[in-house]
Amino acid sequence: MSEILVVGSLAYDSIQTPSGRADRALGGSANYFALAAALFAKVRVVGVVGEDYEQRDYDLLKNRGVDVSGLTKVPGKTFHWEGSYAGDMNEAKTLKTELNVFEHFNPELPENFKNSSFVFLANISPDLQLKVLEQVKSPKFVGLDTMNLWINIKKDDLLKVVSKVNMVLINEGEAKLLTGASNAISAAPLITELGPEVVIIKRGEYGFAMYSKKEGFFILPAMPIPQVVDPTGAGDSFAGGVFGFLASRTGEITISHIKQACLMGTMLASHTIQDFSVKALAQVTLAEVEKRLGEYKKIILH
Amino acid sequence: MSEILVVGSLAYDSIQTPSGRADRALGGSANYFALAAALFAKVRVVGVVGEDYEQRDYDLLKNRGVDVSGLTKVPGKTFHWEGSYAGDMNEAKTLKTELNVFEHFNPELPENFKNSSFVFLANISPDLQLKVLEQVKSPKFVGLDTMNLWINIKKDDLLKVVSKVNMVLINEGEAKLLTGASNAISAAPLITELGPEVVIIKRGEYGFAMYSKKEGFFILPAMPIPQVVDPTGAGDSFAGGVFGFLASRTGEITISHIKQACLMGTMLASHTIQDFSVKALAQVTLAEVEKRLGEYKKIILH
Repeated sequence: MSEILVVGSLAYDSIQTPSGRADRALGGSANYFALAAALFAKVRVVGVVGEDYEQRDYDLLKNRGVDVSGLTKVPGKTFHWEGSYAGDMNEAKTLKTELNVFEHFNPELPENFKNSSFVFLANISPDLQLKVLEQVKSPKFVGLDTMNLWINIKKDDLLKVVSKVNMVLINEGEAKLLTGASNAISAAPLITELGPEVVIIKRGEYGFAMYSKKEGFFILPAMPIPQVVDPTGAGDSFAGGVFGFLASRTGEITISHIKQACLMGTMLASHTIQDFSVKALAQVTLAEVEKRLGEYKKIILH
Repeated sequence: MSEILVVGSLAYDSIQTPSGRADRALGGSANYFALAAALFAKVRVVGVVGEDYEQRDYDLLKNRGVDVSGLTKVPGKTFHWEGSYAGDMNEAKTLKTELNVFEHFNPELPENFKNSSFVFLANISPDLQLKVLEQVKSPKFVGLDTMNLWINIKKDDLLKVVSKVNMVLINEGEAKLLTGASNAISAAPLITELGPEVVIIKRGEYGFAMYSKKEGFFILPAMPIPQVVDPTGAGDSFAGGVFGFLASRTGEITISHIKQACLMGTMLASHTIQDFSVKALAQVTLAEVEKRLGEYKKIILH
């Protein structure tokens, strides 16, 4: 089994959805990713938290076997995001972003993290993503996520790091913004022309469209969930499921592995959205994920 | 093989999309449905056209073996719709609706149409849908489509006809409006509670979600088409593919048949959107549809 390094945010989120609200609940891309991936493989987290970051939130990761020795606690407060969802809940409305200690995040990998085989660069500034990547000795498989902000203000850095990764995970709106394409189907091949062999376009309640240079499209819907409580973290949980599954395989990574990994990502995302924050994700077991995968396969079986 | 009766609009459409425009090009739900369904089964059309309706447009249907003896030509002009699509093209903006002869459409079935086994009530006023249904002696399988307008202004009539059909085909926004649900997944079971055994929620570029009382969900994405020229008629082509395939089977209609029918509907819709008006649909052959189905199955194969 290989180790996965994830670098991203650890946050407290205040979220309003039609189902209710959560105040200063645990969030951040690195938390969602690590909790999902750790069901399958060893995960190492690098990130920064403030003095208010609670012991129980370290313990949540530790209890799932995540190596948290790359988390740095510095003076100040933890990153805080406030957002709300309404209607179809496909997009969050950001009400407040308090970067706090995240503003001066400068990722330094612990020496023993530098041999990680799998690397996931969650949505942070592309120059920091590059800096992380330079510290990893010889990664086997690297993926990244990004957001509109970096496409708009740091596109050159972003294109540089995109050219160095194996897989881009990105949502539909970002894929269109990055490429100028009018839909996900025309955007996907353009993204692989930037370097990566594989792109996964995340489509929220509609699932995903994966495209590989080698074998073209693989497209499937989301798991049908009648009551979506809080969609925050669905994309990072998906990524965690993908990387966790890939890291649990041996030998070369094939498109067939990536397809199975996308199914796992779909399952993890479907658990995350059933409760606020990381609540559902932190409790789910691999057996429950596999049981749901069986149900999912019947739904898409033709 | 069984006969399919379709009642709906025959129209001339003026359409603007990012790919260009078409002026007074052939359209209407009955035309799209009939051209698609006629690849698989005998189709009978009931509708009304104006004095401007061209002989070549009758011939288009006749050449595919469609029985057009239920089309009535009356004084006045054919229904004319003007619309435009922009951005992701998931929704048309209606610029003008000239009902013309369609305003006083009063569907009377020719005597020899009354024994039709399959009936598709395309999007017309629900009281007319009821009137059609009352004229069919003992249909084996009936489906309907509708639109926001009827949900808003003729909901009682609509619920009455919905309670009498086997299948509702409806788009996602309409499904939410009809049920008050916030997403397609919670809307679908509520629609079957109104009477039909099966509902198919059409999701445009994201495909469809079929739900049956018996077996729950069957959900798949659309065929990936990089350049969507004109999405008009995609939903009616989908319905035509579904009904055509079902009518080409013998014996009882099973959920397995309906699943295969949804795949055919997906293929027909994907051809329609590749050109303006009915151009691509009118030219496609069953062999081409089946070839594309083979490609599609690889895209969703896990």
